[in-house]
Amino acid sequence: MTARQGTNPTLVIQKKRDGGELSRDEIVGFVSGYVEGTVADYQMSAMLMAMFLRGMSDAETVSLMQAMLHSGKVMTLESIRGPKVDKHSTGGVGDKVSICLAPLVASCGVFVPMISGRGLGHTGGTLDKLASIDGFRTEMDGRDFERIVRDVGACLIGQTSEIAPADMRIYALRDVTATVESIPLIVASILSKKLAEGIDGLVLDVKVGRGAFMQDGKGARKLAETLVRVGTRAGKRVVALITDMSSPLGRCVGNALETREALDLLAGRAPADLLECTVALGEEMLLLARVTRNRRAAREKLMTAIRDGSASRTMERIIEAQGGDPRVVSDPSRLPRAPLVMSVQAPRSGFVATIDAREIGLSAMALGAGRARAEDPVDPAVGIEILAKPGEAVKKGAPLARLHVRTPSPAVADQVLRAFRIGPRPPRPKPLVIDRITSRTR
Amino acid sequence: MTARQGTNPTLVIQKKRDGGELSRDEIVGFVSGYVEGTVADYQMSAMLMAMFLRGMSDAETVSLMQAMLHSGKVMTLESIRGPKVDKHSTGGVGDKVSICLAPLVASCGVFVPMISGRGLGHTGGTLDKLASIDGFRTEMDGRDFERIVRDVGACLIGQTSEIAPADMRIYALRDVTATVESIPLIVASILSKKLAEGIDGLVLDVKVGRGAFMQDGKGARKLAETLVRVGTRAGKRVVALITDMSSPLGRCVGNALETREALDLLAGRAPADLLECTVALGEEMLLLARVTRNRRAAREKLMTAIRDGSASRTMERIIEAQGGDPRVVSDPSRLPRAPLVMSVQAPRSGFVATIDAREIGLSAMALGAGRARAEDPVDPAVGIEILAKPGEAVKKGAPLARLHVRTPSPAVADQVLRAFRIGPRPPRPKPLVIDRITSRTR
Repeated sequence: MTARQGTNPTLVIQKKRDGGELSRDEIVGFVSGYVEGTVADYQMSAMLMAMFLRGMSDAETVSLMQAMLHSGKVMTLESIRGPKVDKHSTGGVGDKVSICLAPLVASCGVFVPMISGRGLGHTGGTLDKLASIDGFRTEMDGRDFERIVRDVGACLIGQTSEIAPADMRIYALRDVTATVESIPLIVASILSKKLAEGIDGLVLDVKVGRGAFMQDGKGARKLAETLVRVGTRAGKRVVALITDMSSPLGRCVGNALETREALDLLAGRAPADLLECTVALGEEMLLLARVTRNRRAAREKLMTAIRDGSASRTMERIIEAQGGDPRVVSDPSRLPRAPLVMSVQAPRSGFVATIDAREIGLSAMALGAGRARAEDPVDPAVGIEILAKPGEAVKKGAPLARLHVRTPSPAVADQVLRAFRIGPRPPRPKPLVIDRITSRTR
Repeated sequence: MTARQGTNPTLVIQKKRDGGELSRDEIVGFVSGYVEGTVADYQMSAMLMAMFLRGMSDAETVSLMQAMLHSGKVMTLESIRGPKVDKHSTGGVGDKVSICLAPLVASCGVFVPMISGRGLGHTGGTLDKLASIDGFRTEMDGRDFERIVRDVGACLIGQTSEIAPADMRIYALRDVTATVESIPLIVASILSKKLAEGIDGLVLDVKVGRGAFMQDGKGARKLAETLVRVGTRAGKRVVALITDMSSPLGRCVGNALETREALDLLAGRAPADLLECTVALGEEMLLLARVTRNRRAAREKLMTAIRDGSASRTMERIIEAQGGDPRVVSDPSRLPRAPLVMSVQAPRSGFVATIDAREIGLSAMALGAGRARAEDPVDPAVGIEILAKPGEAVKKGAPLARLHVRTPSPAVADQVLRAFRIGPRPPRPKPLVIDRITSRTR
């Protein structure tokens, strides 16, 4: 093993193993050594396990995040005069918020440089959803990205090998060494990508519940607090909302279906929960961007942009700038459609109590809408449409959901049916936004 | 990652990470996967860190040991009718016990199939010491090894790639991933090599003090107890002695010097501490081998073998069988000698209180007797001879030690001098054998 600046990687691992707090230089040296090849994969994985089991201080998490951030290109978006704010969600089922939120907020005067991910497991990814728009490109260099953000207000792309390459390699390693579920490692990974965008502020949507990565409120709260603390220490304005992900968000799960639902929201037709989630996050973005003075004015501005069609027009401009067919905005029937529709019927009358978001996500994956492994392809057309959301009354035999499929899939239909719990009385309504975490939250 | 027998290596790492107890199948599958290439180095190192930080039960340690043992050839020594017992030391400074103990015990009717290691850091290795005997071969195949043990009673060789290859690879990985100092991992590593020798019983010399791997009594006792418990669970008769390694053992440190001291012991000329250590371990070997009924008879038999020359004659036969020049036994001046001798003088009169074994070991390494890295060569001739042991009175200006060197080495002479602490009164005598651990010890 060669040493960098006199630091032996084995001794740095040992320090973390024994519960010591690593210095900025130790972490930066270890990560750069990894990128340069003087720290081996097996040393990084031992370090990740030590970090996982010993935990990390905020200072260590900031150092790790910055080391990964500076392993690649950090955009400055200098040519853009105006507030630059992005949103990141920890991922859920039916979460198409980015697709409607970016044009909505951009139409209100906020610049949104957005780097998104692809779906894996039971959760979908913004890039897969956007890919259902004919011609839409999410791969481009930093110069084109900056131009589009400047000219039309928002641009939605995928992580390139230029952005935080150390994070990309470390993430792949974590995936096969059982070191994924560590809050400091998750926080450093998320923020290293988001801070490469050149943003002033970041709104985080930390999902909690069956369909989310964090299934319990305590874990979600800890993740949200750490994201806000570490992001703030790194010099950004950061706010997190903790939102419910026990049932799918909106009525659609599947790529083209979700894109259509996002476009419908911009046109003023949206399920209440999806609108609530989008507007709540939009308010935070407008407040961080300081384009409105208070929450009420922010909401007013957002609702006006939907009502007067400016959000939809911004979406058309984004799609056109990114090479896609903008006609989908006014005519969503241009999106891919599956050849077959299967209904799932209510086995008895009553009220929908819950819809297990994880089971719905896994069902959509089974239909081909999601991927079990990173290299799997996805089918844009297939998915699940929920016809009866929690709280709604259903009659025995009435349709609960529709499956959009390529071939009859009775096993998946059964799985979707099992995701519904129907009770005799309406369930107690649950708030969608569970908590709001700012750098002043104690 | 491909899975073996349906076991995903990432899930096995995760189980250990979360503090679960791994089953025999999980451990065997993981280690075989590593040997076969379906478990990657970075997965093994993450697992080792999880094992290090979460600890391992005795059952897990036995499984790991047996998985490593059966990754290679396990000798049975079927052609040898008689008790087969070996000794293993955790390593110290001046520890040449194997070289005198093997022929001594063999001359008493115990078969000693001994696989030894090379030196690293401040501690020497038996193989390096034996290499100072002209022509002595420590590399041979299992058939020759068995023949020599059968014909002359003992054979001393090095670990080959046939013996516990999984341990060899895992050990190399531990060395660069800060996962060395874990008692279960140490125990599994030691026993996987020793049990490949086809022995019935094993005596362990667990060293404690400045010159040892374990510097505190608590750690040494835990290591000794775990070695005995795990070895016993694996079906062997196992006893451990915990012996003092605060000062170097005997008077010589350095390869040829130590070989000479070991030969001197067989000829009835030995420092008291070296004789005590050798005979204490020899007694345990004779008792495990059941060639004598009790400790007193065992000691009697060992002392007789020294007195009547049969131990020395066995040593001649071993050296001859292993291709070496047996004349060194009666004429140790045939061993390599350094061209220069430097004296280190007592700075004041008094009594030697302590001699820091670690400092002496590092000094010998600096002279060229040991290696800092596994690939470094060693010089057989150089080393340090201690003239005044703890408890002995010295006059100001009298020699404390002699350095056998290639070139004048005043810095090392200073380092040797600093290792001596001289006090006004004789120190309180310390027992060499601190404790004895058997499977019945609580």
